[in-house]
Amino acid sequence: MRRREFSCAVLFAAVLVSLVWQLGVAAETGQVVSPQVHPDRRVTFRLHAPGADRVEVRVQFAEGVQPMSKDSNGLWSITLGPAEPDIHVYSFIVDGLEIADPVNPSIKFWRTSKSLVEVPGEKPMFFEEQRVDHGVVHIHKYGSKSLGITRGLYIYTPPNYKKEPDVKYPVLFLLHGSGDTEDTWTVVGRANVIVDNLIAQKKTAPMVIVMPYGHTPAGTVVGLDNRNTAAFERDLIDDVVPFVERNYHVSSDRKNRAIVGLSMGGGQSVSVGLGNLDLFSWVGAFSAAVQDQEEYRRLLSDPDSVNARLELLWVGCGREDFLFDANEKFLETLKAKKVKHVAHITDGAHEWRVWRRYLNEFVPLLFKTDK
Amino acid sequence: MRRREFSCAVLFAAVLVSLVWQLGVAAETGQVVSPQVHPDRRVTFRLHAPGADRVEVRVQFAEGVQPMSKDSNGLWSITLGPAEPDIHVYSFIVDGLEIADPVNPSIKFWRTSKSLVEVPGEKPMFFEEQRVDHGVVHIHKYGSKSLGITRGLYIYTPPNYKKEPDVKYPVLFLLHGSGDTEDTWTVVGRANVIVDNLIAQKKTAPMVIVMPYGHTPAGTVVGLDNRNTAAFERDLIDDVVPFVERNYHVSSDRKNRAIVGLSMGGGQSVSVGLGNLDLFSWVGAFSAAVQDQEEYRRLLSDPDSVNARLELLWVGCGREDFLFDANEKFLETLKAKKVKHVAHITDGAHEWRVWRRYLNEFVPLLFKTDK
Repeated sequence: MRRREFSCAVLFAAVLVSLVWQLGVAAETGQVVSPQVHPDRRVTFRLHAPGADRVEVRVQFAEGVQPMSKDSNGLWSITLGPAEPDIHVYSFIVDGLEIADPVNPSIKFWRTSKSLVEVPGEKPMFFEEQRVDHGVVHIHKYGSKSLGITRGLYIYTPPNYKKEPDVKYPVLFLLHGSGDTEDTWTVVGRANVIVDNLIAQKKTAPMVIVMPYGHTPAGTVVGLDNRNTAAFERDLIDDVVPFVERNYHVSSDRKNRAIVGLSMGGGQSVSVGLGNLDLFSWVGAFSAAVQDQEEYRRLLSDPDSVNARLELLWVGCGREDFLFDANEKFLETLKAKKVKHVAHITDGAHEWRVWRRYLNEFVPLLFKTDK
Repeated sequence: MRRREFSCAVLFAAVLVSLVWQLGVAAETGQVVSPQVHPDRRVTFRLHAPGADRVEVRVQFAEGVQPMSKDSNGLWSITLGPAEPDIHVYSFIVDGLEIADPVNPSIKFWRTSKSLVEVPGEKPMFFEEQRVDHGVVHIHKYGSKSLGITRGLYIYTPPNYKKEPDVKYPVLFLLHGSGDTEDTWTVVGRANVIVDNLIAQKKTAPMVIVMPYGHTPAGTVVGLDNRNTAAFERDLIDDVVPFVERNYHVSSDRKNRAIVGLSMGGGQSVSVGLGNLDLFSWVGAFSAAVQDQEEYRRLLSDPDSVNARLELLWVGCGREDFLFDANEKFLETLKAKKVKHVAHITDGAHEWRVWRRYLNEFVPLLFKTDK
């Protein structure tokens, strides 16, 4: 195509886009627009499914399942909200089949694909990318000797990391949940964006964040078993920690090492952290799978020694979380053993909206060694 | 849950998995198994959709659209193949609605979500992760002064990069297509895996690979217009190249710079590469959007000067590609101008199976400066 023809096509497309946008279809591509976030924070969801008899949307900011309406072209739609500024999960239910929004590239896989819609705040939210210095996320593959396989590993370095080669940075080991992989804390959890923003606001010390893969061949698909935790612990301590220390200028002082995880990863951070207080002194658990009180009583059998070495044990859980009872029991165990800790009971269920907030609250507490 | 209970649950689950796997449902999670790649390279696709009247699968290795069969539980399935060892794209069509496989986490978004199924070779394929040294992929955000926005940038460094701080590595700028983003060449294209394998086999010089984002606010959604290419060119030359040279130990010699892209990115690599032979001397185009022959005749107006500076101009296109005619015309323009080039006409359509192969063939040709 010649340049003149391009210009005409572009102009034509631009006019069509402005005309047809309001019908829910982008003229340039003929493609359905979904989701569409309005300035008043209401959200329109659309699905082109002329052959369907019933289409519903399930979204975190609306009750239950909401029926969508079909127009004469077979385009189903509904407008819901206003929604709280946040990253919300949604899915369509088409004649009983639950699917992600086919035209939305933002997907979180958790057993099945779900879609994400980001509703921005009036001011930028803590998880929104802002005009600040940005760190770097490094995607590694390493040979795990303890597991005999190659594994993925994500590592975040803070904005000034390369400019300060003589600084030994503190390290946060950040563990994912049972339905996640090593990229989920950055792709869905926005950990790098959250910590970029905290550092820019001087709310936290700059740190390196290590995000390993939490499932092992020893575990089940769900991964919530002691064999998986034990295999993960070996991989983390014998392979990941040495890999990080060979490749990054980080502190190897236990007072500069923290470990925290969500759900399955929260159970791992408690077991690995409390079980290795010679290596870690800051431990956190977000909506953690902490069912094994017998194990924790064993790990805490010498509470004085634990309290002497532990800088922080932070336990966050939402009241609507299906693991809330388990976390209550874990907190009772801590109280019974007189192990110092911070109980952070909040609203919210077992979901990323909660875990992004917890990370934003937990990180500023770390590596303040004034005792 | 106590440890004993865990063991029982694990044993029970393992027995159930082995019993129920053949029914297409994993017992541990109750979840449908799809896709299932058999040792003979046939593939079974499954979808649980009791409310659907008709379910079909569209997959690259089978003709057209294949109807699936429904069992009494509403589980639709079909077994197809054997398939060539490759990464194949597929989707389900449920009463006319085309969707990705809800239970398969491997997704490629291109206007709509599609699923991927990897069929391994008897020996590992060139795009399969092998037991070799691995490079690192770095995820950057940089402030583009030319565009006035923050942009994403993926950069691959080869396995020995950190061990050789005095080496100035050659750089390949690798551009994506209109439906892609800066992560697609690694996530879907496996560029890092392919080059890891080539380096391990000593088929290529180690190199740094820079994968910028190819869309700009100046462009349309599709991005195939000269305004987008011009804005991208400024961002690449004024922002990306200096960013890379500030942050990586790379050569700034034009003989050590290559540029290649696919589809929209192929059009960009031709326009930016041939338009800046003071910066690049190796240029490649995979299934490229090279429609603007008037522009190319202008860029090639002094063929002797072009031939003197160009180390390689490599043009790959499949005969089934919808851009095949445009590439034929581009090759005619090159012939008419007597500009030296390599025409690499192959089987295949406009798809990632072709572009992974092209990358595997193109990279070993680079940075051999014996002239």
